[in-house]
Amino acid sequence: MLARLPLRTVAMRSLLMRTPIVGLGSVSHGFSASIATRSISYTHASFAEAPKSSVPPSTATPNTPPVPKAKKGPKYGWFNLIFKASVFSVVGFWGWLTWRVYKETNPGEQLPQSPLKENGNKRKNIVILGSGWGAISYLSKLDTTQYNVTIVSPRNYFLFTPLLPSVPSGTIDSRSICDPVRTIARATPGEVRYMEAQAIDIDPEARCIQLEHNSERFSVGDAFINDNEPIRATIDYDYLIYAVGATVNTFGIPGIPENASFLKESNDATAIRQKLFNSIEAARLLPKDSSERKRLMNFVVCGGGPTGVELAAEIQDYIDQDLCKFIPGIEKEMKVTLIEALPNVLASFHPRLIEYTKSIFKEQGLDLLANTRVQSVDKRNVYATLKKSDGTTEDVVVPYGTLVWAGGNTQRPITKRLASKILEQRTARRGLLVDDYLKLDGDDHIFALGDCTFTTNPPTAQVAHQQGHFLAEYFNKLAKLDDLEYSLSKDTDQSQKYDSKIERVKQSMLPFKYRHQGSLAYIGTERAVADLSWGSWSTVALGGSLTFLFWRTAYVSMMLGMRNKILVMTDWLKVAIFGRDCSKES
Amino acid sequence: MLARLPLRTVAMRSLLMRTPIVGLGSVSHGFSASIATRSISYTHASFAEAPKSSVPPSTATPNTPPVPKAKKGPKYGWFNLIFKASVFSVVGFWGWLTWRVYKETNPGEQLPQSPLKENGNKRKNIVILGSGWGAISYLSKLDTTQYNVTIVSPRNYFLFTPLLPSVPSGTIDSRSICDPVRTIARATPGEVRYMEAQAIDIDPEARCIQLEHNSERFSVGDAFINDNEPIRATIDYDYLIYAVGATVNTFGIPGIPENASFLKESNDATAIRQKLFNSIEAARLLPKDSSERKRLMNFVVCGGGPTGVELAAEIQDYIDQDLCKFIPGIEKEMKVTLIEALPNVLASFHPRLIEYTKSIFKEQGLDLLANTRVQSVDKRNVYATLKKSDGTTEDVVVPYGTLVWAGGNTQRPITKRLASKILEQRTARRGLLVDDYLKLDGDDHIFALGDCTFTTNPPTAQVAHQQGHFLAEYFNKLAKLDDLEYSLSKDTDQSQKYDSKIERVKQSMLPFKYRHQGSLAYIGTERAVADLSWGSWSTVALGGSLTFLFWRTAYVSMMLGMRNKILVMTDWLKVAIFGRDCSKES
Repeated sequence: MLARLPLRTVAMRSLLMRTPIVGLGSVSHGFSASIATRSISYTHASFAEAPKSSVPPSTATPNTPPVPKAKKGPKYGWFNLIFKASVFSVVGFWGWLTWRVYKETNPGEQLPQSPLKENGNKRKNIVILGSGWGAISYLSKLDTTQYNVTIVSPRNYFLFTPLLPSVPSGTIDSRSICDPVRTIARATPGEVRYMEAQAIDIDPEARCIQLEHNSERFSVGDAFINDNEPIRATIDYDYLIYAVGATVNTFGIPGIPENASFLKESNDATAIRQKLFNSIEAARLLPKDSSERKRLMNFVVCGGGPTGVELAAEIQDYIDQDLCKFIPGIEKEMKVTLIEALPNVLASFHPRLIEYTKSIFKEQGLDLLANTRVQSVDKRNVYATLKKSDGTTEDVVVPYGTLVWAGGNTQRPITKRLASKILEQRTARRGLLVDDYLKLDGDDHIFALGDCTFTTNPPTAQVAHQQGHFLAEYFNKLAKLDDLEYSLSKDTDQSQKYDSKIERVKQSMLPFKYRHQGSLAYIGTERAVADLSWGSWSTVALGGSLTFLFWRTAYVSMMLGMRNKILVMTDWLKVAIFGRDCSKES
Repeated sequence: MLARLPLRTVAMRSLLMRTPIVGLGSVSHGFSASIATRSISYTHASFAEAPKSSVPPSTATPNTPPVPKAKKGPKYGWFNLIFKASVFSVVGFWGWLTWRVYKETNPGEQLPQSPLKENGNKRKNIVILGSGWGAISYLSKLDTTQYNVTIVSPRNYFLFTPLLPSVPSGTIDSRSICDPVRTIARATPGEVRYMEAQAIDIDPEARCIQLEHNSERFSVGDAFINDNEPIRATIDYDYLIYAVGATVNTFGIPGIPENASFLKESNDATAIRQKLFNSIEAARLLPKDSSERKRLMNFVVCGGGPTGVELAAEIQDYIDQDLCKFIPGIEKEMKVTLIEALPNVLASFHPRLIEYTKSIFKEQGLDLLANTRVQSVDKRNVYATLKKSDGTTEDVVVPYGTLVWAGGNTQRPITKRLASKILEQRTARRGLLVDDYLKLDGDDHIFALGDCTFTTNPPTAQVAHQQGHFLAEYFNKLAKLDDLEYSLSKDTDQSQKYDSKIERVKQSMLPFKYRHQGSLAYIGTERAVADLSWGSWSTVALGGSLTFLFWRTAYVSMMLGMRNKILVMTDWLKVAIFGRDCSKES
């Protein structure tokens, strides 16, 4: 641990420098602060005295011998300055942080939902489907006093997916990257309703959605017709914000759904951790030379995108840094393998970074199988074909104890169902088709964003996040526009004035443009790679430990809630101090 | 939150005063310390100067006017003293804490297992069954260099059960009260093997145990006869420490196993949290006046022991302090009900405390049904009979959304099976019968402790903990005795000397005596009750907020690992700052 501690602590410290939020500090300072300030107050007193005691004489009698005092004079002033500055900054910072946290944990009053706005104009109903990046960034920027907003999702929290690969190893607690939808919904100026339910059907004609709540053990309304029947509800909308995301694409490879874990939701992470420990503990009951034991000690990840790479790296770290302490010899037995069909992992990254990643993997002893396409999977083995440089292919069998499939995305059934109902979407195989304003082709009341759409942009959190903000701004202007048109219809003699205003608003409604800010990936042993771009012209490729600090800083600053920022930093500090534990909550 | 924050923070601070370990401090100070010490070092410099600048002149010319300086002199000394003292104590404390944590997270070398001891005497095999209070306190005190120790348990962590009722509400993260068996096993002087497996059969004659590892997805050894067959192993013992605990007793009440949750393991806590949220979210899809909605909003706990009371109180706190912020109006809809068959909850506590608990419950609006015996349970209702004061009984129906059964204990199947194999245990209905040294009646090689035994002591963690320590001491002496007898057999001419030594050791082996230190229970709204006793003669009954601080202090100091102490205090501080979140990881 000592070996690890310094670097990590530096990491944390640098976070403080870089981000305006010293999350951890606050968690920590509950009382350590009280001690600190007390000791400071002493020093303060002493400083208060010090000048008096030394300066007055030296000024009163400037030529009297005691020279040293004269020397001290400015020195005291200097201390004094630094001291005051630090006190002010510390106090100011804590004040600000406390205020932020208090605001977050004690939401104020919200404007209740109502059929009409103050000006008498209809207050339109917006239904948001989903609680992922798109839905939540939309909700957080929308002026909810202009609409009656309802958010519907079977998952009652927003999950900060970029840090999900850190959960199975225990670097981060899944709770730390969950932000409850209700918390976010309460923080908006206008009342937002939340329904924990799944959309099972959408009627674009009637503009209504069929909802279903599927927590077993619950029956319908008051009449208990059938115990296994879920609770159903219908909800109408004027505008539908469709942000249901996508589901994992297994490319029809036989055996994946039955045998592989995914890494998309927080419970996936828990499942992976349990399978990992099941494998380890089962293996240790078998003789050392048993091939079954060797198999169980293989952790295999399919998919060399950022998610796959980060998970493999985290697990390798976990083995080398922590498990080896409590399960001596496991670092020699346990093997992490990353299988990628393309010639390279992190294909979207700068070639230099790809090479760097490979070198780090080699250094860690992380087994990388590139150019290897998975053909099928059974209970114990992954069957794949390796494409050699000479074009020939070779069959490879990779035995596994734990298998994680970090493949691509495919559309959810509900999305396909919606697409089938709109003529213009019939051709949409890979996702819903939207215009530059994210409006669904063929329907003026549905807007779609994130992974459920098919655009020129990559299916990343970054895109969904920007789309959400864009769409919120767009709807805020739409509300203004709607009010103006309403007022115009009221007094037509003022049409001149309103028309120009309407024109101005319309002109301000520009189409969505994606600004790529770069890609980040953790590659193990406190190292990360970053592919940053400012505008389309300049790009920077970074790799190493400093990039790792940047990676942490960037992710923490990307988080929406102060609570999550602080919790995540607490988790990092916990690991820096205690390492990751090896308990499996089964 | 403000309302809650001060008290809680005080709570935390008081923890610091009372317990030698300022857990949280350490988590916090990763870098805040660095800041602190830096500012301190300035002051130190200033102090270093201060005396020089003021004292020398005053001493050199004792009668020269500048009187103020003379005044300052002692004052500086005073600051100086306090300052130095605080610096030393802070530095010393952090040094100690760092050392403790480092020792815990970086276990040293262990003496490997071997058939013989250095002196040539056989090193006997001890098998510990279980990873609960009895097993772990035994392991932590045992001199593992004297025996070859193997600990076997299907649960690979020790669970600090007293705080389990705080988990469903999210006051404490289940990870914080889990201490991995491997961590504990690595901390002992001698090598300890751990096997994650379940004992399915014990043969007292052959002194061997049949083990089974039951994580689905794993097959046997190398020959894949049958995929569904678990991994099996056999292990021999010279001494068996039987500490498998007990399982929940449903008293054969129909419907309990299918519909109720228990609160014994960490996954039980997770299940309760999920059921709670499923109920709430399902209810909110139903019309306000629906009776089904009312039902879903009922959280029912059966069993008025400490566990049941603490769980009910925690859930009530959760609703009133946190959920109501994000689900407005829930505090009026949601109802927590506690059902107890006896006339009182916390029956074992002092009457004054029982009354106090009742008054707190009334104040919180927590519904208490005493004298109410559960007859049966179905998917929606608890059917019970209420015994009235006039002796007559009345049928009551309690609809529930979430039902928790916090009833008593009953023996595990394996325990019954073991009992059936030993003549002297045939009559043992309520637990294994042991003598004053915890040796099983009818078998000289099996020692039993904790909830799997039937003694005059209550089935509590406290008893198992003391029994574990006693038994470890006993075995340490046993090893000494064994070595002496071995040496005696080697050189019989020295028999005189050895006999007296053996006699002395034997005399030092006193029977087990349970020292009851009291009972604690949290009863909600930052209040707790404590029934303390020093010896058999003096008892103290405490209740209130100060007792709550004591409750926390006592529990933290009871925890075995520094890591857990710190994590639990971090969790308490998190809740003090952010409140409990309302995300449900499904």
